[in-house]
Amino acid sequence: MHSSELQTPALVVDATALDHNLTTMAAALPGARLRPHVKAHKTTALAALQAAHGHLGFTCATVREVEGLAAADLGADLLLANEVVDARRLGAVVAAGSRVTVAVDSDETVDAAVAGGVREVVIDVNVGLPRCGCDPRDAGRLAERARRAGLVVRGVMGYEGHLMMHQPREDRATQTAACMELLLSASADVGGELVSGGGTGTFDVNTWVTEIQAGSYALMDTAYCALGLPFRQALQIEATVISVNPSRWAVADCGLKALGMDHGNPTIDGCAVWYCSDEHVTFSCDDLPTVGARIRVAPAHVDPTVAYHERMHVLGPDGAVVEEWAVDLRGW
Amino acid sequence: MHSSELQTPALVVDATALDHNLTTMAAALPGARLRPHVKAHKTTALAALQAAHGHLGFTCATVREVEGLAAADLGADLLLANEVVDARRLGAVVAAGSRVTVAVDSDETVDAAVAGGVREVVIDVNVGLPRCGCDPRDAGRLAERARRAGLVVRGVMGYEGHLMMHQPREDRATQTAACMELLLSASADVGGELVSGGGTGTFDVNTWVTEIQAGSYALMDTAYCALGLPFRQALQIEATVISVNPSRWAVADCGLKALGMDHGNPTIDGCAVWYCSDEHVTFSCDDLPTVGARIRVAPAHVDPTVAYHERMHVLGPDGAVVEEWAVDLRGW
Repeated sequence: MHSSELQTPALVVDATALDHNLTTMAAALPGARLRPHVKAHKTTALAALQAAHGHLGFTCATVREVEGLAAADLGADLLLANEVVDARRLGAVVAAGSRVTVAVDSDETVDAAVAGGVREVVIDVNVGLPRCGCDPRDAGRLAERARRAGLVVRGVMGYEGHLMMHQPREDRATQTAACMELLLSASADVGGELVSGGGTGTFDVNTWVTEIQAGSYALMDTAYCALGLPFRQALQIEATVISVNPSRWAVADCGLKALGMDHGNPTIDGCAVWYCSDEHVTFSCDDLPTVGARIRVAPAHVDPTVAYHERMHVLGPDGAVVEEWAVDLRGW
Repeated sequence: MHSSELQTPALVVDATALDHNLTTMAAALPGARLRPHVKAHKTTALAALQAAHGHLGFTCATVREVEGLAAADLGADLLLANEVVDARRLGAVVAAGSRVTVAVDSDETVDAAVAGGVREVVIDVNVGLPRCGCDPRDAGRLAERARRAGLVVRGVMGYEGHLMMHQPREDRATQTAACMELLLSASADVGGELVSGGGTGTFDVNTWVTEIQAGSYALMDTAYCALGLPFRQALQIEATVISVNPSRWAVADCGLKALGMDHGNPTIDGCAVWYCSDEHVTFSCDDLPTVGARIRVAPAHVDPTVAYHERMHVLGPDGAVVEEWAVDLRGW
């Protein structure tokens, strides 16, 4: 099947760009230096490709991602880099034979890990992003509490998410250094071998962690592409032009329910995007397309875009669909 | 089961508010005066309730919505208020015994209806929103072309979507009148009995159409609630507090993948929402909740929020889950 025969809107992945991204990252951060974050693609078939590139441990944001990877025989070393107050489903994955480590940042989440049957944790440390993570000065105490409760504390994690899009690169590097100073100080108090952090935006400037949790690098989006990283936009949305207002604009069937919008409008090469509504994107360009034409829409934020779609289609250089992957890690 | 036992994030619907909304609308626009738009809830169980309130025709935005309603025995009179360039799946629904009418705004979409086996159309007229719809002056020609091609032209539709949130109400009414003047002029050229348009924001000021296509009124969102309409916020997201930074903020598990963000941040009663990331909302309030507490998050835009979720849970006054509905019209 050619991409032009796909029911639209449809996620399409350029196989060449994807391969470039996976290969480039595996060269920069080989093996366990990268713990790919699956939240960016929510697709076990793509996680299996990352494993084939040498990255056998994965980062997850939801319990379902953990369950799905384990069910797909990718459960060698799964880190839920997020807090849960009910860890029973994670405990069931452990009992079934996978290795699951969960982030904890409070007494309550330590207790939840114990109660749920999870045996390994990392101490999640706040390094500046106003989100999860304990005070760096509390990390040692929390680790001690976890160990007293019978848990193995594998180390620390700390996500400098507020710096991912920070420009220029030099400032990003300097500010990452300051964040990681906090994480390393917590690591000294906590012990363990893991210092986990980072993301696509800091993959090459965060040289302090033992493993980088990047996810977006595989598929990319227009926000990350603006940083000048060595990764290419591999994911777009194939859409059909369904209406053309002759003198001014065209409309394609790729709207708010096919696109994460928190980073703003998507882009269409050579066109100006006016706005999106539920099932439409309205845009203009010098040569308006005709009704029925196919266009490609590049999302501004890959993660919440992928989460709307049931499947993604991998395209060869000629536009033929060479693989169809279920986006099988959606939901919670 | 009580809502506090739901896996979070979870869509929850206040049964009392929903009943109020359905009853209020059915009193204002009884029977065929309302053609409920299912794109706002994507749930056949809720559509069945709307039918029980007397509205037997439905408005759809996608082919899958048409297919799903037909499969749920709600196919008495389905209007796909959107253009398609491949109508074969619609034709299959017609062949299976449902009544399907599709919007057309170009020669190409007329031809697609014929080729796909759809027998009834409405002429979609642009009334000011830069999206689909033909020039009002072209509507008569298009209707003639459609009839020559063997189609039944049931009338016109025109959506004044740019006015839905327009304030104050008096201006909304005045501007709606101007839009509907265009639609009525097209209607005079086209003929047929249907003049379809409007939405939740104009349900009571658009007195020109024969039927209103409102959808959001059933569940509502914070953007529509700001208009002072007689409908109540029935939909919220139950979320769990997973992390608390003692002096400043809390984090719950309801993020970008659980919320349509094009209308901005969601709201949490009594709290200030700072921002959302993929799986988190960070917020502050005078009395921070504790880890494990449940909170309710009200989305700013209902349609793209619902489209992220697999199911919604209807809650009685005591918070008990009285029904669980599959959000079964998602995708395309």
